[in-house]
Amino acid sequence: MFNEKMYRLGSKRSTIREIFEYAKKRSAEIGAENVFDFSIGNPFVPAPAIVNQTIERLVKETPSVELHGYTSAQGDKSVRDRIAENYVRRFGAQLSGDDIYMTVGAAASLTITFKALTCEDDEFIVFAPYFPEYAVFVANAGAKLTVLPSDEHMQPNFTALEKALNPHVKGVLINSPNNPSGAVYSALTIARLTDILRRKAREFGAPIYLISDEPYRELVYDENTKVPCIMNYYDDSIVCYSYSKSLSLPGERIGYIAVNPKATDSKAVYAAVCGAGRSLGFVCAPALFQRVAAECDGMTADLSVYKRNRDLLYKGLTDCGFTCVYPDGAFYLFLKAAEEDAAAFCERAKKYELLLVGGEDFGAKGWVRVAYCVQTERIEKALPLFKKLAEEYGL
Amino acid sequence: MFNEKMYRLGSKRSTIREIFEYAKKRSAEIGAENVFDFSIGNPFVPAPAIVNQTIERLVKETPSVELHGYTSAQGDKSVRDRIAENYVRRFGAQLSGDDIYMTVGAAASLTITFKALTCEDDEFIVFAPYFPEYAVFVANAGAKLTVLPSDEHMQPNFTALEKALNPHVKGVLINSPNNPSGAVYSALTIARLTDILRRKAREFGAPIYLISDEPYRELVYDENTKVPCIMNYYDDSIVCYSYSKSLSLPGERIGYIAVNPKATDSKAVYAAVCGAGRSLGFVCAPALFQRVAAECDGMTADLSVYKRNRDLLYKGLTDCGFTCVYPDGAFYLFLKAAEEDAAAFCERAKKYELLLVGGEDFGAKGWVRVAYCVQTERIEKALPLFKKLAEEYGL
Repeated sequence: MFNEKMYRLGSKRSTIREIFEYAKKRSAEIGAENVFDFSIGNPFVPAPAIVNQTIERLVKETPSVELHGYTSAQGDKSVRDRIAENYVRRFGAQLSGDDIYMTVGAAASLTITFKALTCEDDEFIVFAPYFPEYAVFVANAGAKLTVLPSDEHMQPNFTALEKALNPHVKGVLINSPNNPSGAVYSALTIARLTDILRRKAREFGAPIYLISDEPYRELVYDENTKVPCIMNYYDDSIVCYSYSKSLSLPGERIGYIAVNPKATDSKAVYAAVCGAGRSLGFVCAPALFQRVAAECDGMTADLSVYKRNRDLLYKGLTDCGFTCVYPDGAFYLFLKAAEEDAAAFCERAKKYELLLVGGEDFGAKGWVRVAYCVQTERIEKALPLFKKLAEEYGL
Repeated sequence: MFNEKMYRLGSKRSTIREIFEYAKKRSAEIGAENVFDFSIGNPFVPAPAIVNQTIERLVKETPSVELHGYTSAQGDKSVRDRIAENYVRRFGAQLSGDDIYMTVGAAASLTITFKALTCEDDEFIVFAPYFPEYAVFVANAGAKLTVLPSDEHMQPNFTALEKALNPHVKGVLINSPNNPSGAVYSALTIARLTDILRRKAREFGAPIYLISDEPYRELVYDENTKVPCIMNYYDDSIVCYSYSKSLSLPGERIGYIAVNPKATDSKAVYAAVCGAGRSLGFVCAPALFQRVAAECDGMTADLSVYKRNRDLLYKGLTDCGFTCVYPDGAFYLFLKAAEEDAAAFCERAKKYELLLVGGEDFGAKGWVRVAYCVQTERIEKALPLFKKLAEEYGL
């Protein structure tokens, strides 16, 4: 009567969304101040003032029909040109507005890219831990997702990669800074990764695309932490970007796909991106927020709060005796569950009103994600509860 | 190397988009005032003042994190409740916010609905003339689109429908007021149509969904023209709505899907809609515009301009000797090409800088669509050119 797969996807929400909804319910029961929701990557820091200022200015100054009308399917030309100019200036990669396709946020950037690339029997590779919706998006394109392990610093396991690459692998998806681990791939990592891809692509006689999901690109906290621009390392690369996290507007759904103009048949890949966007029902990215994105591209919300949170939480949790990955970026901390079953650990944390997401869904058994994009005060109040949780485990 | 189908979809733009891009190019060459672009349904009438007022108020009054943050995947609860309340009040159909799923506009409403419903070997039926992207959206779900003829008043051919219905038909898609013909289905038409569907569904022992694509619902111009609410006629019905045309904000991408709560297993169908939205990469509809939609639901831009345009154009073109369908609604007029080959007719019209869309793509050979959502002055200036075109054909 209807599509069973879609029914299952819709009736069994993602774990993250499940906890997000639970948090809302629980807050109504015992008061939001008593619920410590570390489940969702919904930025707490307000959008930079320029976002709302730009909205107000555009609404005042731009004729309604121009402001709210259709843009070209790939996005307003001046918006794309401006974002490309910034990209060239910031990262040194050569790129024009014609290589950029505006999207309704990161999820759309990914479903469109997968759909554009996927041929029969295709496969994409991702390293655990990874954002679980990747599996949904790859499945939507009809491709297979292969999950490979990372090392203890959450850097890719290159031996596993060498082994897994085969002529059906259409692309490797990376996400650095990483959700859920907070790890950032160094320039050395990217160089090693792309060396392997280049060699294997030559061997197989077909491009292997490197797809870089970069919503956390700007969210790094130490001076020495740099997020390498993959276009400078590898020609067959596609950047999927979203302004959700950098500008704190995840609900507005605005981002882009940038196809490296040095990619094999780059113009045709870009056309396939346009076709996939059309096929999936995206017409154009929201017009007002396209202009807001262009105006605010490269800027960020006040990241100092996340840095403070990161430092406080990492110190607090390690002081409690928990094992954590040091989070170089994004706003997630990856914590080793104090028992084998991370889901059971999360259930026990719930008793203290601590809402965490088990690592199972991220392909990382025994780990737990703590999203620290919350008010610092929430972390301060939560740490004694984490302490009690640690004591329960005799840490 | 990439998906060939997507490449073709992306490199061969829809005819409408093709002419839209040509118009931009031609305007740059000879000045916009000399190009008469009747190709695209991009409303010329500004959004009602309340749209921008609401945006300004929300931006001033709502904390950034709340305003621009994620909403639930199906849309903000208060937004959905408010839209449902209006629906009940306006149309008398029983509906709650939990039957509504907010989308990124009409195209998304449709791709999500098709994906939610489609099982293996499924088929959807549409009556010509129809919006050509339907074929793309149905193909994306992996279903087959069957196109049936209409009568000379652009009402469904019921004999053809009776014949075409078979156990693989998952749904019938209607679009009234119609793009491209401007025809509106009367209550009698809907009653006859749903009688057949009910009877056949009983015969096959499975629901046949009636999917109603209603972006033009509010755009009717005569007192006696009413758009019947399909939920009052048929239980297994799904309404796909968009605010693009009623509120003149097609670039902002905001609409909804309403699943009739009286539909068979309505909650499961709704869950499948949620799953399809997730699978296609829609996370949530743009947050700010969800609230704008709730605030402005049921209101419209100033439709008197379209009525004036409709009257002027219909009279002008019939006076020239052209055969036209009298357009009861939407902002399109369907004109019989003065030669067999509508594409050749459109090419000849281009000589006079009249940009029309051939009916071939709409499944209506020999017809042409004239979108009159333009400044009235454009029609006044264009009519003498249409006159010359008619004279060329000896009309």
